[in-house]
Amino acid sequence: MSLSPTTPGVPVTKPTGVTAPKGFVAGATTAGIKPSGKSDMALVVNQGPHFNAAAVFTRNRVVASPVKLSKAAVADGQVRAVLYNSGNANACNGKQGDKDAQAMVDELAALTGIVGQDIAVCSTGLIGEPLPMNKTLGGVRGVVGQLSSEGGHAAAEAIMTTDTVAKEAVVHGGGWTLGAMGKGVGMMAPSLATMLVCLTTDAAATPAALQQALHSACDATFNTLDIDGSTSTNDTVIILANGASGIEPSQEELDDAVLKACADIADQLQADAEGVTKRVKITVEGTTDDAQALAAARTLGRDNLFKCAMFGSDPNWGRVLAAVGMADADMDPENISVAFNNQPVCINSTGAPGAREVDLSGIDIDVHVHLGLNGPGRAFLRTTDLSHQYVEINSAYSS
Amino acid sequence: MSLSPTTPGVPVTKPTGVTAPKGFVAGATTAGIKPSGKSDMALVVNQGPHFNAAAVFTRNRVVASPVKLSKAAVADGQVRAVLYNSGNANACNGKQGDKDAQAMVDELAALTGIVGQDIAVCSTGLIGEPLPMNKTLGGVRGVVGQLSSEGGHAAAEAIMTTDTVAKEAVVHGGGWTLGAMGKGVGMMAPSLATMLVCLTTDAAATPAALQQALHSACDATFNTLDIDGSTSTNDTVIILANGASGIEPSQEELDDAVLKACADIADQLQADAEGVTKRVKITVEGTTDDAQALAAARTLGRDNLFKCAMFGSDPNWGRVLAAVGMADADMDPENISVAFNNQPVCINSTGAPGAREVDLSGIDIDVHVHLGLNGPGRAFLRTTDLSHQYVEINSAYSS
Repeated sequence: MSLSPTTPGVPVTKPTGVTAPKGFVAGATTAGIKPSGKSDMALVVNQGPHFNAAAVFTRNRVVASPVKLSKAAVADGQVRAVLYNSGNANACNGKQGDKDAQAMVDELAALTGIVGQDIAVCSTGLIGEPLPMNKTLGGVRGVVGQLSSEGGHAAAEAIMTTDTVAKEAVVHGGGWTLGAMGKGVGMMAPSLATMLVCLTTDAAATPAALQQALHSACDATFNTLDIDGSTSTNDTVIILANGASGIEPSQEELDDAVLKACADIADQLQADAEGVTKRVKITVEGTTDDAQALAAARTLGRDNLFKCAMFGSDPNWGRVLAAVGMADADMDPENISVAFNNQPVCINSTGAPGAREVDLSGIDIDVHVHLGLNGPGRAFLRTTDLSHQYVEINSAYSS
Repeated sequence: MSLSPTTPGVPVTKPTGVTAPKGFVAGATTAGIKPSGKSDMALVVNQGPHFNAAAVFTRNRVVASPVKLSKAAVADGQVRAVLYNSGNANACNGKQGDKDAQAMVDELAALTGIVGQDIAVCSTGLIGEPLPMNKTLGGVRGVVGQLSSEGGHAAAEAIMTTDTVAKEAVVHGGGWTLGAMGKGVGMMAPSLATMLVCLTTDAAATPAALQQALHSACDATFNTLDIDGSTSTNDTVIILANGASGIEPSQEELDDAVLKACADIADQLQADAEGVTKRVKITVEGTTDDAQALAAARTLGRDNLFKCAMFGSDPNWGRVLAAVGMADADMDPENISVAFNNQPVCINSTGAPGAREVDLSGIDIDVHVHLGLNGPGRAFLRTTDLSHQYVEINSAYSS
């Protein structure tokens, strides 16, 4: 697993991110959707020979128009191009939003000859503002002219919203390559900070193999990244495979590469999450099954009192017990143990000696919770603290 | 419904709160459990002739020692005295915590002749610190000497933690009276701010009648007050009835009075919640049943992005849709409507004209959400914004 350079302003000449594998081109342009004037439209095109694809979408019931369209596009396992815009989520815009997403596809289809059914669209930005279609369609025309086998980094930059750095990853298999780009600030701000991820590979893989690899990787990475419990209307993770390397890896090799790329992007998302001063990793065990362990980890990771304590470097383990006690998980309430950074602070639901003096002043905090049962349930979750900056960023936003 | 005076420092001579009904005495003292030196122990005693009681306790699986003891005490529907301490929750102290709670009961029983089985104990304060038993038992001896029919207000002051005002209520029935005291800052800080409520009445009422009235009142009041989704290990609402008025109200009259007193205390809790700059009232309708409407209201009321928008007076209705879209409730995602302060901001899941200009600068914000179905489901929830002060108060606490 190797990171691509992401230093702003440094020209990237070697192929990175989604253009690292053979047979993929990408590009970016400034359509003018973002008030900042920064690039806000990107395009990733698979040049074949195969056009296999799979995707995972938001679980939110309120889904943006581009998500509806992309779900239909990927349903047959074939996608040739993914069109991105940032600055406007095209969510909650009613039938006009559906029409606008379709118009983006139609324009791209007319320009490239790719049939509309093989084009996916991803949008991220403010919810409930109609897309400025003159600018958007101008952007579609502009981005087609920017396509290049070195365009991965520019594409990764164009999908950023409140992200402070572009997020890319490359994983090398035996004679084949997997590339990725992502954006989002930890799913913290669905009205501007949707999580979008695009993975590309020159391996040969069936849509079913891609779907299996993507689902298990998402479960282990993005779905364990829970900054504030919010889930965007636009979240989309898509993988495209063209077989240009001539190599068909085993399912295990494919799973492993997709997992590595997703883990890398997830790490970058967590590190760039809005207002983060602490990276908190929660492990829960000692319950009936993994699902219950995850439920307890989520309840803790979303508990504002716990998150404020982390912000304050406060080893307040009582808040851990109070939070997990409300979780939908089997436990022995008299036999819960908690450790911060491997130092026991609570044993058998009672304070350990020196618990109040544990030093949590560093950026990384590991929290280990044992729910007191012998069951095999185990789960891992990444979250962050709740800081002044989080409130600041999210309290003055659309208006 | 009338509020008792709560101005700090003003002597209260007429009976208020829990001593407003006939046949109840209360008192307070400074045991020295609170570092501040403020009063930290209170006692409410029912002088009969009946000693009927009912209670509602925290749903948290991790329960404090006094909660376990009080559950056993009220199980037979008879309670003569409720002993309170603030400054220490006696939670997560293992078997020592159980012994210490029992020692408080034993001391009070020895001093008053009330059998231990008829004594409930409520504690609030830091989790995971052993009770200082010398001070605590000294406090039990001290508080017995302070009992008086005018002691309600002093008791209400002694149970405060981060509360800034004492919270009392009195409701007058036809020839009978219901009094109440409460503490808590909106269930926001379980490690110091448990919600405790004590209701007293000189009406005659069976334990079953009291239980029915208390349960339905709690569902409609305290259980609709959801500041941050946190639930304390110590929450206890208890009602005592002695029949001293000689009047047995109908179930409906009793229900009505208990509801009024609980609503009054709940209003005071919300107004005094930590770091509050906005009081947000959420109404959800247009779904299958009331439980689903409440699930959607809770999901919205706990969503940090929505709460930050409220803090910023930002009519960001997209966050409302993104939040309720994740709720476990039936809805028509294409047909959701939202109004802020009775001004439509979203109609059929699409922005209404002028939505971004709605003025939310006042302290009170009403949010009305219609989930787009014809079902009869309806729910109401009170919450607050997420402010800098919330982070401040809760990030520097135990240490």
